[in-house]
Amino acid sequence: MSTENLDTRMTELGQAARAAGRVIAASGTEARDQVLRTTASLIQERADAILETNMADVEAAKAHRDDAFIDRLALDGSRLEALAVELEHIAELPDLLGQTSDMQDQPNGLKIGRMRVPIGVIGMIYEARPGVTVEAGGLCIKSGNAVILRGGTESYRSNQALVECLQEGLRQASLPPEGAQLLPTTDRAAIDALLKMDEWVDLIIPRGGTELIKRVHDQTHIPILKHLHGVCHVYIDDTADRDQAIQIAVNAKTQRYGVCNAMETLLVAESRAEELLPVLGDVYAEHGVEIRGCPRTCDLLEQAVPAVEGDWSEEYLSPVLSVRVVADLDEAMDHIEKYGSHHTDAIVTTDEERAKRFMREVDSSSVILNASTRFADGFEYGLGAEIGISTDKLHARGPVGLEGLTSQKFVVYGDGQVRV
Amino acid sequence: MSTENLDTRMTELGQAARAAGRVIAASGTEARDQVLRTTASLIQERADAILETNMADVEAAKAHRDDAFIDRLALDGSRLEALAVELEHIAELPDLLGQTSDMQDQPNGLKIGRMRVPIGVIGMIYEARPGVTVEAGGLCIKSGNAVILRGGTESYRSNQALVECLQEGLRQASLPPEGAQLLPTTDRAAIDALLKMDEWVDLIIPRGGTELIKRVHDQTHIPILKHLHGVCHVYIDDTADRDQAIQIAVNAKTQRYGVCNAMETLLVAESRAEELLPVLGDVYAEHGVEIRGCPRTCDLLEQAVPAVEGDWSEEYLSPVLSVRVVADLDEAMDHIEKYGSHHTDAIVTTDEERAKRFMREVDSSSVILNASTRFADGFEYGLGAEIGISTDKLHARGPVGLEGLTSQKFVVYGDGQVRV
Repeated sequence: MSTENLDTRMTELGQAARAAGRVIAASGTEARDQVLRTTASLIQERADAILETNMADVEAAKAHRDDAFIDRLALDGSRLEALAVELEHIAELPDLLGQTSDMQDQPNGLKIGRMRVPIGVIGMIYEARPGVTVEAGGLCIKSGNAVILRGGTESYRSNQALVECLQEGLRQASLPPEGAQLLPTTDRAAIDALLKMDEWVDLIIPRGGTELIKRVHDQTHIPILKHLHGVCHVYIDDTADRDQAIQIAVNAKTQRYGVCNAMETLLVAESRAEELLPVLGDVYAEHGVEIRGCPRTCDLLEQAVPAVEGDWSEEYLSPVLSVRVVADLDEAMDHIEKYGSHHTDAIVTTDEERAKRFMREVDSSSVILNASTRFADGFEYGLGAEIGISTDKLHARGPVGLEGLTSQKFVVYGDGQVRV
Repeated sequence: MSTENLDTRMTELGQAARAAGRVIAASGTEARDQVLRTTASLIQERADAILETNMADVEAAKAHRDDAFIDRLALDGSRLEALAVELEHIAELPDLLGQTSDMQDQPNGLKIGRMRVPIGVIGMIYEARPGVTVEAGGLCIKSGNAVILRGGTESYRSNQALVECLQEGLRQASLPPEGAQLLPTTDRAAIDALLKMDEWVDLIIPRGGTELIKRVHDQTHIPILKHLHGVCHVYIDDTADRDQAIQIAVNAKTQRYGVCNAMETLLVAESRAEELLPVLGDVYAEHGVEIRGCPRTCDLLEQAVPAVEGDWSEEYLSPVLSVRVVADLDEAMDHIEKYGSHHTDAIVTTDEERAKRFMREVDSSSVILNASTRFADGFEYGLGAEIGISTDKLHARGPVGLEGLTSQKFVVYGDGQVRV
């Protein structure tokens, strides 16, 4: 596509998204839920065609991509079924739109409060996981927004097939199909244009690796809701319950490795190091977890290799763990502030005052007392669905569900009041 | 200051703000309130010296600035007194920090909810109004944040004198004085550096004219909370109560002109135009308000001059009003969407269904039924204080008080839970 053609096409796409967003925002709960249910049915009906299209994407990608990549890209019958079920599930969640809160009667008779409304148009930029097309599309429409989708280049055909289901779902609910649009080309120029469409796009959500998110962050002035890395800590305080400390330190690391809420660094109070580290070291060894430790840790654990400075801020996403012995709570919190990523951090303690300090003072999107960091996700938190985990502090922080895709405006109800 | 010196100085400043922010965030309500009360006393005690310093700023500015500018820059005894009273008032507002909400018991025994915490470090960029130094400083500290202040060049000496009061207030409460810092120089290079300090600054609040805000927006990737212009509308529906319609349309325009929540465009339903516009025209004429009208308005009002396209999106901030006759609610809402600034819009109607649609569908930070647009401000809304009015949709929308200067993180309380 030539530069002028692309510019024209992107402007049309932005305007159409804005217009569609207004209609979807004003639509009733019924209509939006119907979109999701119809889309779910269409995904099931068209399963064969979608899988064939996906196969073409997979075949083309095999030439230059590894197995892990292909695994994320490939769909099969059960993955499609799971996506359909997820849409049905989102349809059943309560509709937040139009809900008012904080209503107060002012002395002059005005009733003033807040009403929950959609954000408007959301730009979703993600990697080659076609399922995100359906999940993000479903969540944005449920919450009354229009969405512009840009998945990884390798999944373009699969995404087209899936967006067509969403668009047909919108059409059948008498809503504009432009409520869910895919970028017209996989050219990088189209992303660049999207990131400059301040007038038509209210929020950009990048989802994927740190590289992708940094690139988006550096290129746009549109607000973004970003999930950077998760360098999560567990701190075992000197008053920690022994069983809890061991269970949590093991679970947070070994229950799953490649996830953002897995522990990457274990901090242990000096007074408990000699008792707990050898026990933990044995369990980690059984799981094949490599230990990179501070000098004290290396004294206590034969298998530990010395950690280098870079280890403390590394998101391993693999069976590797850095371990540090600290003097006390303050040293632990200083370490977390210095090396952490403000994602999820946990303390194991029986001391109420220290628990209170940790919960209050550690500046992370989730802070956890006496439980595994692995609980930090939208489903475990009862949000019903999750579009991502925000490590930002503004707007939405931590797991983001439907609420994070909405905004609150002030509503004022009067009967003729004027200002004196 | 040389470029290297400035860079070093700005990095020190950012690091010091971050460190101070941590201490202030962890401090008790008492300590933060004490800062504000001490600062209030110091402003009163040092009034003579502050006014002398301010006089030097005023004298220097007189050479190249107009009277309106000087009026904003100049302090006097009663303005200082008002600032001290405002600080006392902010000190009396409830402390939001540490408040938990949405606490829920999960089936696995976890208690999960949200805790209100400070944002961290806030960069405040504003024009030559020294009072903002005190107000913004007070609000940021009350809400547990550190603040970096950059007021207009012409008010530099005044700001220094006032920041010294804030710093002494922090010191006397045993909190780090770096919790409130002024940029070390009025060089534009210092603002440029501030806007790139993603690592140390969590939020930028630009306050001032549209020019300033656009410049900040275009130069930073740090989240910003911005107040663009207010092109506010009143729509008189065909079922409007006659007296309410007239009172509101007059008050919204004439009660004060130079404010962002004043009405700039009046929309009148066709069926009421002939009845209401002549009456309104007479009142506006008494107030010396110039009318720029659509053709139908010009038919009905002799004094009206034809509006040009640019009028509909103009924020006059003066005794000028654009007036348009529209067919119905839909045409009114389309006009507001096309030309408005998503700030504050009002409808006058007795029809419940239309009221409901307007309140729900108009995408503005405040939507108002049967009352003047002039009510859109933090004090009228009962927020107790206001750092600005946000026309953004993310995080905080509309008048922003202490809550908008805070964030919510997830807190999870367990007794040994691990994920299976």
